[in-house]
Amino acid sequence: MNTRTCQRIVLASRPRGAPVAPEHFRLERVPVPPVADGQVLVRNHFLSLDPYMRGRMEEFKSYAAPQPLNETMVGGTVGIVEESRNSKFAAGDVVAGYLGWQEYGLSDGEGLMKIDTRHVPMSAYLGPVGMPGVTAWYGLKQICRPKPGETVLVSAASGAVGSVVGQLAKMAGCRAVGIAGGPEKCAYVREELGFDACIDHRQFTDVRAMGEAIGAAAPDGVDAVFENVGGIGLDAALTRMNPFGRIALCGLIAGYEGGDVAIRNTRILLTMRLRIEGFIVSEHLEFWPTALAELGQGVATGTIK
Amino acid sequence: MNTRTCQRIVLASRPRGAPVAPEHFRLERVPVPPVADGQVLVRNHFLSLDPYMRGRMEEFKSYAAPQPLNETMVGGTVGIVEESRNSKFAAGDVVAGYLGWQEYGLSDGEGLMKIDTRHVPMSAYLGPVGMPGVTAWYGLKQICRPKPGETVLVSAASGAVGSVVGQLAKMAGCRAVGIAGGPEKCAYVREELGFDACIDHRQFTDVRAMGEAIGAAAPDGVDAVFENVGGIGLDAALTRMNPFGRIALCGLIAGYEGGDVAIRNTRILLTMRLRIEGFIVSEHLEFWPTALAELGQGVATGTIK
Repeated sequence: MNTRTCQRIVLASRPRGAPVAPEHFRLERVPVPPVADGQVLVRNHFLSLDPYMRGRMEEFKSYAAPQPLNETMVGGTVGIVEESRNSKFAAGDVVAGYLGWQEYGLSDGEGLMKIDTRHVPMSAYLGPVGMPGVTAWYGLKQICRPKPGETVLVSAASGAVGSVVGQLAKMAGCRAVGIAGGPEKCAYVREELGFDACIDHRQFTDVRAMGEAIGAAAPDGVDAVFENVGGIGLDAALTRMNPFGRIALCGLIAGYEGGDVAIRNTRILLTMRLRIEGFIVSEHLEFWPTALAELGQGVATGTIK
Repeated sequence: MNTRTCQRIVLASRPRGAPVAPEHFRLERVPVPPVADGQVLVRNHFLSLDPYMRGRMEEFKSYAAPQPLNETMVGGTVGIVEESRNSKFAAGDVVAGYLGWQEYGLSDGEGLMKIDTRHVPMSAYLGPVGMPGVTAWYGLKQICRPKPGETVLVSAASGAVGSVVGQLAKMAGCRAVGIAGGPEKCAYVREELGFDACIDHRQFTDVRAMGEAIGAAAPDGVDAVFENVGGIGLDAALTRMNPFGRIALCGLIAGYEGGDVAIRNTRILLTMRLRIEGFIVSEHLEFWPTALAELGQGVATGTIK
């Protein structure tokens, strides 16, 4: 029945260091699969590219199984139902899911969510109103728990997660300080996203100098850190923390390609009575409805970019 | 009026590395001070020697001011009121306080507590029913929050704090695994204190080997760590943590004399969704009455040694 073909990208080999196509990825053309009873065929309009994928390419013990070789790369998608043999979906429905890096995806409906694109653009469901947005919301609201007037520091501030963290922090009455790589990203973080300050981490190679830059951007000290990177930036942030500070550990990009992500300022965790907590947003499904409602309203009203 | 003299020990210089008398400490003989209105003169029977004192000998920024040079060393005491001009105390009262390393201490009553020595020996108020005991109680009950059947790992397990942590963990229905230095201490931890297992850290110089020893002692993995030491032992413990594990960071003895206490396994905090939290027991006074009641009963009934 399906004579159409579908392009997809599979993981061809496990990268060490930076992943580089075509050595690590392979573009394939396969037939569009037939739709069985209970299934939905979705044509994907947007695919997501997220930092967590780098971890999946490895084989180390983690919270999720590694991405299998020679199979479609994992990833969030938004698309339109093309054919449905599942009573919960109809052709034409706009849906978000995890159908991976392929033009057409087959689903049994599990994890597939109908979305409303009247006020929120389709692609936002892969960003501020999707997994990255809920990640930002959960780490900030449930772990950092900032009070009005406090200072929140966000690394990878121009990214899909960090950009939302800073905007939510501003909405909560906090001072938002970003860390990003390069003057263009920093200008975007300050001028487009509305952070109070942004530090270009490329200008710093040691903890002390970066700590001074953070201190200048956070004159009342740092009360909460949303950490996406680790390494020098985190150690530098620790030197500026106020007592009882909270650190939501969301990612360690600094280590994705084999870099060192040790926390050297362990003593500060003790002397400043800090709390650091790692989290995986997909384990906190009970918060998704609240988070998505708040984020959706933020995007619809233009408060969140 | 007071022609008697009082022996006291003052900090003579700030040590680098291991503190060694007489270079760093000086024994002095001074007159017993006169008792002013509102004051209490206590003859100290027991003085306490605690790990936190090493930190006070330094000048670095911390939660407490440094110990001043040429003044009586800070420290917990238990003694008997010799003379009182304070209506809350009478001569003969047994009292615990922070009168420092001296034979006689003068107090305005602030921080001085009358204690009951009918069922609990006087010295226990400097140990399991004093600051070390409450430290153990708070870190275990409020940060580690172990459930019955879980495994709790305790470093410096033979010490004043660690010994109580393990006994409280056993009382809570947990498996208690200690880390201590040397076969005698380990035997004491197992046989006298009733821990299920104890690892001699002196047998290990690398994270992998020590992690294997912890794994053997904690076959179901480690759910909570009460950390008094840091360094290799903490990194090794992290390799054996179960998801959502808790680490109460109470001390970093490994770094007291300039050693490295970096956390190198930062990635595990993320992948295993761990929480690490530093604390200072003196900031949680609201828990002291509950903690002291439980600890006092444990000591009086012989459950806590």
